[in-house]
Amino acid sequence: MSQNKNYTPPKVWTWDSESGGEWANISRPVSGATHDKALPTGKHPLQLYSLATPNGQKVTIMLEELLALGHTKAEYDAYLIDISEGDQFGSGFVAVNPNSKIPALMDHAPASGNSPQRVFESGAILLYLAEKFNDLLPENPGKRTEALSWLFWQMGSAPYVGGGFGHFYKYAPEPIEYAIDRFTMETKRQLDVLDKHLADNEYMAGDEYSIADIAIWPWYGSLVLGYAYDAKEFLDAESYKHLLRWAKQIDTREAVRRGRIVNKTWGDDNEVQLRERHDAADIDKILK
Amino acid sequence: MSQNKNYTPPKVWTWDSESGGEWANISRPVSGATHDKALPTGKHPLQLYSLATPNGQKVTIMLEELLALGHTKAEYDAYLIDISEGDQFGSGFVAVNPNSKIPALMDHAPASGNSPQRVFESGAILLYLAEKFNDLLPENPGKRTEALSWLFWQMGSAPYVGGGFGHFYKYAPEPIEYAIDRFTMETKRQLDVLDKHLADNEYMAGDEYSIADIAIWPWYGSLVLGYAYDAKEFLDAESYKHLLRWAKQIDTREAVRRGRIVNKTWGDDNEVQLRERHDAADIDKILK
Repeated sequence: MSQNKNYTPPKVWTWDSESGGEWANISRPVSGATHDKALPTGKHPLQLYSLATPNGQKVTIMLEELLALGHTKAEYDAYLIDISEGDQFGSGFVAVNPNSKIPALMDHAPASGNSPQRVFESGAILLYLAEKFNDLLPENPGKRTEALSWLFWQMGSAPYVGGGFGHFYKYAPEPIEYAIDRFTMETKRQLDVLDKHLADNEYMAGDEYSIADIAIWPWYGSLVLGYAYDAKEFLDAESYKHLLRWAKQIDTREAVRRGRIVNKTWGDDNEVQLRERHDAADIDKILK
Repeated sequence: MSQNKNYTPPKVWTWDSESGGEWANISRPVSGATHDKALPTGKHPLQLYSLATPNGQKVTIMLEELLALGHTKAEYDAYLIDISEGDQFGSGFVAVNPNSKIPALMDHAPASGNSPQRVFESGAILLYLAEKFNDLLPENPGKRTEALSWLFWQMGSAPYVGGGFGHFYKYAPEPIEYAIDRFTMETKRQLDVLDKHLADNEYMAGDEYSIADIAIWPWYGSLVLGYAYDAKEFLDAESYKHLLRWAKQIDTREAVRRGRIVNKTWGDDNEVQLRERHDAADIDKILK
């Protein structure tokens, strides 16, 4: 593929399955299952189907934080959804998340006593778990509202980082200056929003660590710590001092160390990889 | 600006304020206020600062739905934030939403009895209002969870439509084939997700109209009805029959007709425009 300088969009768009860059093989203009495949189910009430991308890490960090807080019913099986293999288009996964994206959760023991409950979208899963275990979301109404504003901020903002900046900076078949400029500008603006907020607040919702931090850290913490897209220098990450302070502070949390490696399949031999997690011991073995 | 075929990103990105297309004048890589400007405050407890974009319409539709349901305390003043004039960078607005995006809400009579509460991000505002008035979010836990999954789905998906498809199809200074293909494919995939879901469900969360519908309609309903981006033909909107059924059904709701014109400043002489709304009569006059 190369850029056509004189491109005019057609009247009706049609799919050229050759285009799309590194992730082209899993990008489709239609939804739904491509093949029959049941999901496995383990021994715990919470069954997570995921991958250790930032959106996946949000949920595994949340579950590890809940376990660290003593919520034994937050025990979970984390099964791998390998998106490069098309696992997200299996019929079982599509039934849990019709949007074919990780993470997706099945709660086999919902508080309501209803039949098993599906929950999809990382933000919805964080809120669901916070309400189920009545933790990591401030009880004070004003702080709760502030935490939720930032949770939704993360959900609406990170697509510009992941689907915009990350894609055009790292994955697109060739660098397109206009698109890189557009999404770098927006990513830096978002980093600055966080930096200014964290200049005056220990955590996103004030003095309490909450699902707002758990949602934001895997994206923006990872970015300034250099865990994502190898873009620390390009984005001048060091200039966001308050964001870096917060990112490092959260990086040292035991539950964050544990949660971020679950369903991780990549990295060189020196990096941890943990395809599935069914028990605390699965993580203990690696982090010992 | 023209596309540089041999572009290599620099080591450290720097801002060229000349680039950026139609909205370049309001795009910045930094956040925060650019000038001192207090926000006006009207007579009602709820003060909305917004513009009739899809994200703005979500909230005005929600407020009109609540009023139609008899919640008299949902009365509101809707002040215009003209983003083409930089109103979102005024100090008063930034204090309500540090992210400088519409919509933003101040509740001067929060249920907690606390001091005035800020709420930002359209999804957070919908959830806040649904909880405040205990309406438009199913009480049944399973349906509530489903509504919230779809609410978060909308927040994480629409940036690919607005900041991706809409920008590159309609606003960018010249058409970039790769970017148009990328975001059209994803937009069509999302339309198909909705279409398949609405084949089996009257509303997004099942048989109850909820904040999930209110969040999704201004983006995806508008797209297939031809209200947004003039892209009905390009996206083959007619092929999404179930989505269209739902879109038309919601389009006829009185509260939707009312909500979608609030803070609207554009359109030709035959189209309604309502810069501010302080009373039901402001809308009545236009829709009579």
